[in-house]
Amino acid sequence: MASADVLAIERAADGLYDELVAFTQALVRVPSVTGQEEAVQLVVARALRELGLDVDVWEPDPAEIRPYHGLVAEEVDFHGRPNVVGTLRGTAGGRSLILCGHVDTVTPGDPARWAHPPYAAQVVDGNLYGRGAVDMKAGLAAALFALRALADAGVKPRGDVLVQSVIGEENGGVGTLACLLRGYRADAAIIMEPTRLAVVPAQGGSAVFRLHLAGRTAHACVRDEGVSAVEKFCYLLAGLREYERQRNATLRHPLYESFANKIPVEIGVVRGGDWASSVPDWLVAEGRAGLLPGEEIEWLHHDFERHVAEWANRDPWLREHPPRVEWWSGQYAPSEVPVDLPLVKLVQESFRRVVGREPAVTGVTYGSDMRHYISIGRIPTVMFGPGDVRLAHYTDEYVPLAEVLAAVKVLALAISEWGAP
Amino acid sequence: MASADVLAIERAADGLYDELVAFTQALVRVPSVTGQEEAVQLVVARALRELGLDVDVWEPDPAEIRPYHGLVAEEVDFHGRPNVVGTLRGTAGGRSLILCGHVDTVTPGDPARWAHPPYAAQVVDGNLYGRGAVDMKAGLAAALFALRALADAGVKPRGDVLVQSVIGEENGGVGTLACLLRGYRADAAIIMEPTRLAVVPAQGGSAVFRLHLAGRTAHACVRDEGVSAVEKFCYLLAGLREYERQRNATLRHPLYESFANKIPVEIGVVRGGDWASSVPDWLVAEGRAGLLPGEEIEWLHHDFERHVAEWANRDPWLREHPPRVEWWSGQYAPSEVPVDLPLVKLVQESFRRVVGREPAVTGVTYGSDMRHYISIGRIPTVMFGPGDVRLAHYTDEYVPLAEVLAAVKVLALAISEWGAP
Repeated sequence: MASADVLAIERAADGLYDELVAFTQALVRVPSVTGQEEAVQLVVARALRELGLDVDVWEPDPAEIRPYHGLVAEEVDFHGRPNVVGTLRGTAGGRSLILCGHVDTVTPGDPARWAHPPYAAQVVDGNLYGRGAVDMKAGLAAALFALRALADAGVKPRGDVLVQSVIGEENGGVGTLACLLRGYRADAAIIMEPTRLAVVPAQGGSAVFRLHLAGRTAHACVRDEGVSAVEKFCYLLAGLREYERQRNATLRHPLYESFANKIPVEIGVVRGGDWASSVPDWLVAEGRAGLLPGEEIEWLHHDFERHVAEWANRDPWLREHPPRVEWWSGQYAPSEVPVDLPLVKLVQESFRRVVGREPAVTGVTYGSDMRHYISIGRIPTVMFGPGDVRLAHYTDEYVPLAEVLAAVKVLALAISEWGAP
Repeated sequence: MASADVLAIERAADGLYDELVAFTQALVRVPSVTGQEEAVQLVVARALRELGLDVDVWEPDPAEIRPYHGLVAEEVDFHGRPNVVGTLRGTAGGRSLILCGHVDTVTPGDPARWAHPPYAAQVVDGNLYGRGAVDMKAGLAAALFALRALADAGVKPRGDVLVQSVIGEENGGVGTLACLLRGYRADAAIIMEPTRLAVVPAQGGSAVFRLHLAGRTAHACVRDEGVSAVEKFCYLLAGLREYERQRNATLRHPLYESFANKIPVEIGVVRGGDWASSVPDWLVAEGRAGLLPGEEIEWLHHDFERHVAEWANRDPWLREHPPRVEWWSGQYAPSEVPVDLPLVKLVQESFRRVVGREPAVTGVTYGSDMRHYISIGRIPTVMFGPGDVRLAHYTDEYVPLAEVLAAVKVLALAISEWGAP
């Protein structure tokens, strides 16, 4: 691509900054917790039509999804949950590209704990605050404005570009799965998940588990006659921390060398006992165990169960009453593409041209729809987007607008180059 | 009392053994979880009438109970929850005596975990199994059969004897409170709680608390960015164990010297976190802290809060986000009477005559209605009854029938002697 074109695209993007901010704010202001995506999808569909794309809006068919339960969450009804795909036909039959963003978000929790209300989309010091700002409405907005910038710069992509605005990512990625099942394919895909503009060719996986612990109840006035399932859980939690430590010490992957914690193991939910004055004889804990690319989910299941059993075996009570491990909800396989893939180099090179330095190339510890594109669609995929995932799912989630603008430019260059001969 | 009378009473009791077992079984077979006491109370009332007592059956007035919330659980409706008092008029105006038993029980939990079904009242190897068998339907049955044995032996108590069959003990003792508010008084009271036939002039107390812990949420894939409220709870639980250890090491009471754990502190319920793949940012734990007779509830509150604060202060996160301690549900004050009280000596002496050795005189770590009789009624009270409290609130609760029969005899002698000049 000629330097003149690069300059024209960057100038066009700069000229769209205020509209980019306003559109991202508009997306954030429409609540779209997983399961309630319709209102925001109508906003996206309208914007895609205004960009001149062919727009397909449909609700996934539960019967089509059913065989994939386990891979995505079990849901029986997609009424009011449309998927949206906008297609821009290429001018010269070049390589096609998918740009994927999910519109669903996790809940904001108690709004009182936000300094910046979750749906106000306030801009303070160049940061846009709100639920979904970083995960990942800004990334989706960046893809749309990349197409706007190309149009304003008079650059027409030679290959087809598909903007996929999907539902249900936070629950396993049913929206992206539904796109694949509807026949949408391309020569590559970029997911605009928040990577802080790093190029991410590898994602970790997570295996979601439930632990069942048994104690022995007794009146709390003679608590030593009983065995507290809560106390045994605390012992087991120490064992999970040790499991995480051991795996971090032994696992190696070139894209994860900088991570202090490559495969986080965490307990997110505990419920135990029925009565304040009784020794609790049951506890259920839900959590996740991380996997590195290259690891098999089934192997992790086996290894995790082995470790839990060994840890339990050191405790006289748990030896006789071993915790039961149940695998439930999504089992997110890790996924990766080779770092020397043309797609990876494309995004690296686009970044270098815009920012003037080498981008980080790294893995991430979270799962995303990337695995569906790679394992089901056989579509080479990377993640690249604005914002820091450490702010996702958190109060006062925000995205730096300068990163969003940079993402617009990088994506525009990448789209333009990918279709070229 | 003449030895001939003692022998006659004992023989009468022995002759009633089969009826005693059948009646205790009948009580166990009528479920009476706290709040659902009506059916079993009708059985007790009929038995008291057949014994020739004047029987008073009434539902407590919520307005009358309201000022005592905090002392007993808050409840707004006593429909279908009658209290029962049977009065046997003494023949000669001797000292009066209350015999108190509660008919309510805790839930059986999952019946599948019982080897002997909770409402089958099976008798195996001289033990009667079932929910409420030991806590405390056998004790109540023993009081009724003590009066039967006296009648059969031709011994008429000289003072009034009041059999109080009360509701709501497991929830703070509203039934006994209602008896006092209705004007029932006596010169002494015996509660037939399971003491293994020990004479118990002292009961521990318990302060029921709720702990609120805050963490900081984050996506579990970057768990080190968050702070797990569950992990902080496990740290705090260790602090509660240490608190219990320190108190056990320093507290002294002559009736508790044989207890390995004089003031049990236990967590009975935990609830924390919302999502398996998020660092949990909240946890609520409910539990109880034991008190010895002589300790003030308000002092314990203060001391417990001080310890929690000090323990939290050693942890950087908890120092900045201290756990909140809430006192809720019943605050059970400990209670005691002097060991040289005539009532204590009466039960000791009656035991000695029946069993032929000195009874144990000890405290217990649980709370009971004893405190209401002592603090509100100013009525000297001891506990004495069959069975082991360690089996209360437990699956396959049972009472040894030989102890029930011995309790019948001891109570009969005590009733007879107490009214004597």
